[in-house]
Amino acid sequence: VFPPVPGNSRSGEPAPCRLLNPLKLLTLARDLGRRKARERQGLFVCEGTRAVAELLRSGIRIRGALVAATPEPHPRVAGLRQALLSAGVNVEDVTEREFHSASDTETPQGILAIAGIPERALSDIPWDAANPLRLLILDGIQEPGNVGTLIRTAAALGASATLALPGTVDLWNAKVVRSSVGALFHHLSLPCTWEELDTFRQDRGIALWGADAQGVPLNRAEETPPRLALVVGNEGQGLSAAATARVQRTISLPIAPAVESLNVAVAAGILLYELRR
Amino acid sequence: VFPPVPGNSRSGEPAPCRLLNPLKLLTLARDLGRRKARERQGLFVCEGTRAVAELLRSGIRIRGALVAATPEPHPRVAGLRQALLSAGVNVEDVTEREFHSASDTETPQGILAIAGIPERALSDIPWDAANPLRLLILDGIQEPGNVGTLIRTAAALGASATLALPGTVDLWNAKVVRSSVGALFHHLSLPCTWEELDTFRQDRGIALWGADAQGVPLNRAEETPPRLALVVGNEGQGLSAAATARVQRTISLPIAPAVESLNVAVAAGILLYELRR
Repeated sequence: VFPPVPGNSRSGEPAPCRLLNPLKLLTLARDLGRRKARERQGLFVCEGTRAVAELLRSGIRIRGALVAATPEPHPRVAGLRQALLSAGVNVEDVTEREFHSASDTETPQGILAIAGIPERALSDIPWDAANPLRLLILDGIQEPGNVGTLIRTAAALGASATLALPGTVDLWNAKVVRSSVGALFHHLSLPCTWEELDTFRQDRGIALWGADAQGVPLNRAEETPPRLALVVGNEGQGLSAAATARVQRTISLPIAPAVESLNVAVAAGILLYELRR
Repeated sequence: VFPPVPGNSRSGEPAPCRLLNPLKLLTLARDLGRRKARERQGLFVCEGTRAVAELLRSGIRIRGALVAATPEPHPRVAGLRQALLSAGVNVEDVTEREFHSASDTETPQGILAIAGIPERALSDIPWDAANPLRLLILDGIQEPGNVGTLIRTAAALGASATLALPGTVDLWNAKVVRSSVGALFHHLSLPCTWEELDTFRQDRGIALWGADAQGVPLNRAEETPPRLALVVGNEGQGLSAAATARVQRTISLPIAPAVESLNVAVAAGILLYELRR
């Protein structure tokens, strides 16, 4: 068990950039593989050259980084290592074996960073009665690769936020971080409960639609509400009972009868594109 | 090295359903992890309950199956095992450790099947000058999960075939098989060269469009060609030189400036949906 790390994003003002105990960085990275540890520490792991580069660019405070000493390093690792050092980040070199013990990938690129989970709240969602609004709501989506791609898709297609309801995988899971390709760092993505969402929507007049194979096929000509939250569910089970009880309308995409369903991120992409304002 | 298995789909008429040597089934499954072995044998591995259920339903001839003897088997494994036996498939029970040695997943569900790669050719694509046609063309896409999702998406959104150009991952890679969720079994997905595609297109008057972030933003009001092949490229590198030299038009999707790109399967889904006839 680790004591809370001073100066992470949860504890108010950022502390001066203190070095973590170097020996503890590897153990910390391993520990952050567990959701409970991430929640307790307010920290997450970001692995791989592309994700670490996006993290550096995001301005989220990086608490430390690990680089594997390998005979044939990934071509981008050396440059990133230098960029991290220039940004004042504590970079530790570890053996391949040590790196592997903290890595979440089968063939690690040999670089990971530990950073503070940004503090976010529903009240951060910019809202103005005169402007259209789109929200993406994740209802019990457990596959981390899909959740990361959903966040990337929502950010690209102009949604103001992505909200993860209970039953959805932790947004700061290493696979979600990686598959969002940086979108998680700048797109407002946060967990919330149905009750919080209910209050938020009612106060702001936001319609709630659900996507489901049994829904009414999307009609391009139809008017869509100016402020709309779109709920997408688990690929196997569809929308939860809590979602079904709340949605004002259930929509679907017409697909070939031989195919059971679209991938949830592909379906959300088409719907967000079609429903954009 | 394995001798070619008699009666696989590449050797003409299906042979009577002969049992493979049980001891060899595990070794064969391991060997089929390599593309060269799949090509030589004309066989592929299909792992997991959902994929094996779809395979059984597809009518593709299954050559054998492995089931892991585990204390807590996946709830659907027993039923599937029975269904395979009822279909006359040679099912071998192996230890968890043995299964793991042939498995391509981190947390195996404990069931896999070996089946013949269907023989497919460009001439199988149904073509009629009076009807619209949509093809999806994969240009050097290496990530197997994306390729499987692209095949699933093309099948769902009414494309007649998905063609994999050189540089694209093998379509019968275990991860592609799994992520296509059965679409690979019934949707015409096959490798082809640029030269084969050129001849095929010219003979049938099929337009070629490419998707690229630098392209002209898609305009919903515009007429799209009745017969259209859409090329999508590698997420990192975009369209290849061979594609760029051939496409009659390059289209893009308008996305938020903070996001570099959409996931390739999400982008293809939106474009195939928008360009449908």
